[in-house]
Amino acid sequence: MLTPLSQIAEALRSARSVAIAAHVRPDGDAVGSVMGLALSLQAAGKTVYALLEDGVPSNLTFLPEVATILTPPYADFEIDVAVALDTATHERLGEKTKAALARAPLLIDIDHHPANPGYGQLNHVDGVQPAVGQIVYELLKAGDFPLTDAVLQHLYTAIITDTGSFQFSSTTARTHEIVAEMLKAGLDTARLARLIYQTQPVRRLQLLRAMLNEMDIRSEGRIASWKFTRRLMDEVQVQSGDTEGLIDTLRMIDSVVAAVIFEEMPDGKIRVSSRSKDERLDVSAVCAQFGGGGHRMAAGARMRGPIEAATETFLTALEHEVRRLA
Amino acid sequence: MLTPLSQIAEALRSARSVAIAAHVRPDGDAVGSVMGLALSLQAAGKTVYALLEDGVPSNLTFLPEVATILTPPYADFEIDVAVALDTATHERLGEKTKAALARAPLLIDIDHHPANPGYGQLNHVDGVQPAVGQIVYELLKAGDFPLTDAVLQHLYTAIITDTGSFQFSSTTARTHEIVAEMLKAGLDTARLARLIYQTQPVRRLQLLRAMLNEMDIRSEGRIASWKFTRRLMDEVQVQSGDTEGLIDTLRMIDSVVAAVIFEEMPDGKIRVSSRSKDERLDVSAVCAQFGGGGHRMAAGARMRGPIEAATETFLTALEHEVRRLA
Repeated sequence: MLTPLSQIAEALRSARSVAIAAHVRPDGDAVGSVMGLALSLQAAGKTVYALLEDGVPSNLTFLPEVATILTPPYADFEIDVAVALDTATHERLGEKTKAALARAPLLIDIDHHPANPGYGQLNHVDGVQPAVGQIVYELLKAGDFPLTDAVLQHLYTAIITDTGSFQFSSTTARTHEIVAEMLKAGLDTARLARLIYQTQPVRRLQLLRAMLNEMDIRSEGRIASWKFTRRLMDEVQVQSGDTEGLIDTLRMIDSVVAAVIFEEMPDGKIRVSSRSKDERLDVSAVCAQFGGGGHRMAAGARMRGPIEAATETFLTALEHEVRRLA
Repeated sequence: MLTPLSQIAEALRSARSVAIAAHVRPDGDAVGSVMGLALSLQAAGKTVYALLEDGVPSNLTFLPEVATILTPPYADFEIDVAVALDTATHERLGEKTKAALARAPLLIDIDHHPANPGYGQLNHVDGVQPAVGQIVYELLKAGDFPLTDAVLQHLYTAIITDTGSFQFSSTTARTHEIVAEMLKAGLDTARLARLIYQTQPVRRLQLLRAMLNEMDIRSEGRIASWKFTRRLMDEVQVQSGDTEGLIDTLRMIDSVVAAVIFEEMPDGKIRVSSRSKDERLDVSAVCAQFGGGGHRMAAGARMRGPIEAATETFLTALEHEVRRLA
């Protein structure tokens, strides 16, 4: 499952045309690692297709060349090698993207989700890495591929977003060494951080305000939750990426051990996002009761609507688990 | 003004008793650099007094040994050497703390505010450093002083808070290299980040909610401001440190070029905190009109109340400057 990066670099070196993709509902690590690898291979003279089933979220459109990212329906291009990045299961690529990657005789699966089963012919799944962008950086160095400023912009974005600005426990000494190398190469990291974190549409603050006004705190302050309704989505004219990180604000409350957001989807289903702040509380077990899953500290599920009923059902199950803590 | 750190280390090496202090209304860099230096010198066998005129803010009380920090009135201790950290002017130490440091025949002034005139006998003012905690780290390495886990906890806190979690343009490659060294030494940086950023009293969210509900946006979205009243302070039972970073949320709005918070002080005065997001807009010039000052991008002033009148007077002057931008 841990094909050496030098061997993957070799496979990429001998390819003429490469398609690179990541998971549906892409985040900073998905967009950044796809485009970091794509722009480097392009600079190395290859024909490259970057594919994202759901396109680029509105908060990352400032990144270089993201307008070249393809979304379905895909044209009839031919490829030697396909690369899936940051995508824990083959299905998470999205149906059309999975089919497009299947045109290549070789699929390379590079990821940091420990649960990734290794669905490629070459697999490099390293659960210790904080971001796939960090793995891609090492891959490009191993293969001596070009590290242009645009490439570094994407890989830095991948790393800073997936480490929560270097705050998560997944952050390693090597993470900081890589950013030091990027700064020495002249990358304007402060500009990127400003565009990622310090430039928010008013919509984001409207959502944050609504959440703070409407949030529900129960179980002696240990559970904070919020119902994100279609009415509010329409009112604010929400765009992809707008809700990124909102749940972290709920989790921040000192007394909270579990934070949950319930989101009304267009199909009437309720998307549940949950976070734990206590190692003993496994939110993926609660989500599993409703057909969902994920990690111990971060998990999700989809439930039947209406949102009020789903919320109470889920919170009752969660409260049961929270009561079992000391 | 840039006495070599090796020379300062020598002066500290030969001291028996040292007093270390930082500015009034201390932030993470003030507390972290004072206690980082204090605990290291203590581990090196010296008698050390850590002094803060206003004590430790409530959000930093989790840090090791901060209960040993002295506040006025100070006992009658004797010292060989005094060190002022992160304090741009001699007066900013606070009256009692300045007097206590004056008991030593030698005052060492270590700072990163370019405007620091060098009021010590030895001065190391390096405006390029993102945090005084980073200078203290280099000083301790230069002098081969102990870098215990407690020392590193303080210096990491100093660095992460003064760089906005490594996002500000002041962050250097060396900043990241130092954090890499700290991680290699076994420091649990994620725990500290969680305690600093991801553990907020409900009061903080109440303040944030009030700000989002009450904020004023004018000049085509280019000025965001908020009146922080005594009524709200009493209602929320605000503590020192609670308002840290609130202004950054106003500054985040994409259209905003200037963010201002007006705070009613116990003496009836209005404390004005302002931030610019456009290099061409100098908020210190606006603050100077009201007897204040600071940096181009971050400045403050104190105005006469009532808060409504002060707010309108200041915003009128600010709007005048904002209109002059393109």
